[in-house]
Formats: sequence, structure tokens, C-alpha cells
Amino acid sequence: MNIDLFFIPLQIQDELSLQNKTVIVVDVLRASTTIATALKNGARAIIPVASIENAVKYASTLEPGSFLLCGERGGKIIDGFDLGNSPFEYTEEKVMGKTLIYASTNGSVAITKTKYAKHSLVAGFINISEVVKFVSENSDDILILCSGKLNRFCIEDTVCGGMIAFLLTKGKSRKRLNLSDSTVSAIKLYKFYSKNLLKMLRESEHGRFLIELGFEEDLKVASSIDSIPILPIFSDGVIKALK
Amino acid sequence: MNIDLFFIPLQIQDELSLQNKTVIVVDVLRASTTIATALKNGARAIIPVASIENAVKYASTLEPGSFLLCGERGGKIIDGFDLGNSPFEYTEEKVMGKTLIYASTNGSVAITKTKYAKHSLVAGFINISEVVKFVSENSDDILILCSGKLNRFCIEDTVCGGMIAFLLTKGKSRKRLNLSDSTVSAIKLYKFYSKNLLKMLRESEHGRFLIELGFEEDLKVASSIDSIPILPIFSDGVIKALK
Repeated sequence: MNIDLFFIPLQIQDELSLQNKTVIVVDVLRASTTIATALKNGARAIIPVASIENAVKYASTLEPGSFLLCGERGGKIIDGFDLGNSPFEYTEEKVMGKTLIYASTNGSVAITKTKYAKHSLVAGFINISEVVKFVSENSDDILILCSGKLNRFCIEDTVCGGMIAFLLTKGKSRKRLNLSDSTVSAIKLYKFYSKNLLKMLRESEHGRFLIELGFEEDLKVASSIDSIPILPIFSDGVIKALK
Repeated sequence: MNIDLFFIPLQIQDELSLQNKTVIVVDVLRASTTIATALKNGARAIIPVASIENAVKYASTLEPGSFLLCGERGGKIIDGFDLGNSPFEYTEEKVMGKTLIYASTNGSVAITKTKYAKHSLVAGFINISEVVKFVSENSDDILILCSGKLNRFCIEDTVCGGMIAFLLTKGKSRKRLNLSDSTVSAIKLYKFYSKNLLKMLRESEHGRFLIELGFEEDLKVASSIDSIPILPIFSDGVIKALK
């Protein structure tokens, strides 16, 4: 089993190289957490887009009333959009049956970069067992893709990626595993922080930024292991929950 | 004191943003180690170049006999060049008084990206105290730039960068330090590996690659703390030892 881990989406220089891989996209704060919440609450589908322009363009192809424009820049809702990027906004009342056009700064960009992957999954602490179960059942090479923040390293994505790698390798013979330097390092960082994930989030660069913006409660949701047992799969440009 | 750390040179998206920073370029295997060795053994100057083409072009401007063409691709000496990238090749006999045109795959590229930095230093385990001493004496923002390998994360550069950050912050009040997520993580990885740096190098992706090529002894040199007390500074396109 080969497990590699990228700290930032910029490391994908050739998107076609993902063709035979299962890619696990991690954006703990907050895309992974928000996408899982939206699907749990009945969103029909989520369309990740890499720019505001693409969001508006895509919206013009859909029937009015059938979709919501969602996303953030600088952590805040985009002007004129329906929802920002806090999981608390994605209630059943708001999202049930809707298509969400979703433009977050980092997670959306990372997800769209995986369009050629054999499988592309969206993972956070909130659905980690679902992800590990799916990946354990196939034998593809695995790339854990941390979304980071504007191509900077984020500790929370790395620790979550390290936890995924740790769970995938637990009990397996080291001889049958091929882990990259980055995967080994992420596992070590996960082990260091595993006892208090919420504290790690609070002390992280991105966590402190969100607390300043008033989103402290989002950190609690994002750090709750297996609290949203949904597996979002990105395929043909659309994220849906695996049935 | 602000200390940031990049895992790969690709993270520098705007070279001009380095203007007010002291950048510490780390390429443990092997550019940092080899450059310090060459300067210790009397090389007059080292010109890092980002491509073989640039090396040959630069050479055509120098007097024959005054320079050596140095560097590697895939760990091996470049066809037609005088020296490869093992520190053992950079003997006094070979390099004394010469200008070295130096084209390594990762370190050279990382160094050339720092041309606008206020100060740019080349650091490895072999000269770590010299680097820390120089940086401690000024109050610039610091960027530790790991060279990585073809824009992949390398554990050995990160652990060395973490050691530099650890030494710079030792005994300082946490309130006066502003460390990025990546810097904090590198310090943690350094602490984990600090007891046996050679073992870490042997187990690293790049270390295993070099051992396969027959360069096992290079790892021993590269892991010897403060064995080459030289401070290479990159300025106006040239690396020289600080007098």
C-alpha cells in the first residue's frame, strides 16, 4: 500500500497523474466539515468551483430556486451569495433538495484539482471512519491532499491526514507499506496532537483567524470525530454522499 | 520575532515578498553540505544556477581554467561537468581558488529564488550554529526555506529547519514569538528525531535514494552538527563565505 500526502494543492503539478489514485481531500476548517453537514441535511448535490466567476457562471445554467450560491473569501460570506462557509448555516431548512454551488477559498480549489482521480473523497475528523472504511476496501495508491490555506501549510489538515494514514496502517506489516516522508511526518504530528484536537484547532493559524471572525463554535463541530457519518464523493464535477 | 517555514520552494509565489526577510535555505542532502565543504576548501565563489543551460551559458563568460562546472541530475554528476554533488568531491586540490558554477536539482533552484531577500543564508546541520548566531544578531522576519526534492517534502530539510527554529526560540518568551503552523510542526519533528539524525537521514526518502546510488558516506557528513563552521551567504548572484 502506497500512501503519499501533499501539504498544499500546489503540489499537484499534473492533474492527470491522479488517474489511478484514490485521493482524500482534507479541509478541516471548514470545507470538509461544511460539505458533510450539507449532505447530511439533505442537499441534493454540491458543485465545487474554483472561483466566484465560475460560481456565477454555473448558476446561470440552473433553474432559479433550485440552487444556492455558497462560499467565502477571507472567511466571510461572498457578497450576494446565499450561504457562507459555517456548517451552522447549512440547516435542513435551507439546503434540503437544493444544489449548492460552493466556492470556498481552499477546499473547493483542492477538490476541483482531483477531477481526474479514480476516486476523490472529502474527509475531515467528522467523517474519518467512513473514509477509512471506503479506502481500506480497495487497493489503489492513496494520496491525502491537504487543502492548506492559500498554499500555506495548515496543521489541522495535516493532523487529520496523519490520523487517516495512521488508521489505514494500523496493524499492517511495515514491509507492505510504502509511506512517503510527508505521510510519516503527518502520522507523528497526529500522535502528538491526538489527545486534544480542539486545542490544536484553537492554537492553529486558521483556527485563531476564525475565532477572531466569531466562528469559534465551528471549531468544536470540526473537531468532533465521526459526528457526521457521511462519505462525500466527488465525481463528474459533483459531490454527492455515497449511499 | 516572526519565523515562518516553507516545505518546498514552490511556496514562494512572489520572490519580491522576500525583500525585508532573512531567508535560510536548507538542503541537507546535499547542496548545503556540499557548498559549505567547497567554501571551507577554498572555493573562491559559488554561482548557483537553476538549469544546466544556465550553467553552460554562465561558464562561457568566464576565463577557461578559472571555474568548474558542478552539479547533478538524479543524484549523479551531469554529463560533461567537472564535479557532481558529493561533498567528498570538493577537495582543496580541486576547488581552491576556483569559481564553481553549481547546478543541483533542488538546492540551486531554492537559492536562486531568494535573490531579492535582505539576507540569504545556506544552512545544514554542518553549520547550524553559525547560521543561528548570524540570525540572532538581527531582527528581521525569518523564512526557513526547505529545498525539498522536486517540490516534494523532505523530512531531513524540515528537521534541520525545525532545529534552527528551536535554537532561535530557546529561552525566549512565547509572547514575543510569532511562529507559523509549519514552524511549530518542524520544531516538533526535530524534537522527535533529534536523538539520531543519521538514522533519520538513512530512513528518509532522499537518504534511501542516495544510499542506493552509493553515497551512504555523504549522509554521515551531512548529519554531523557544526562540523563545517562556515556561513555561506548568497548575494548579487554569488555565494561566498562570511568572513
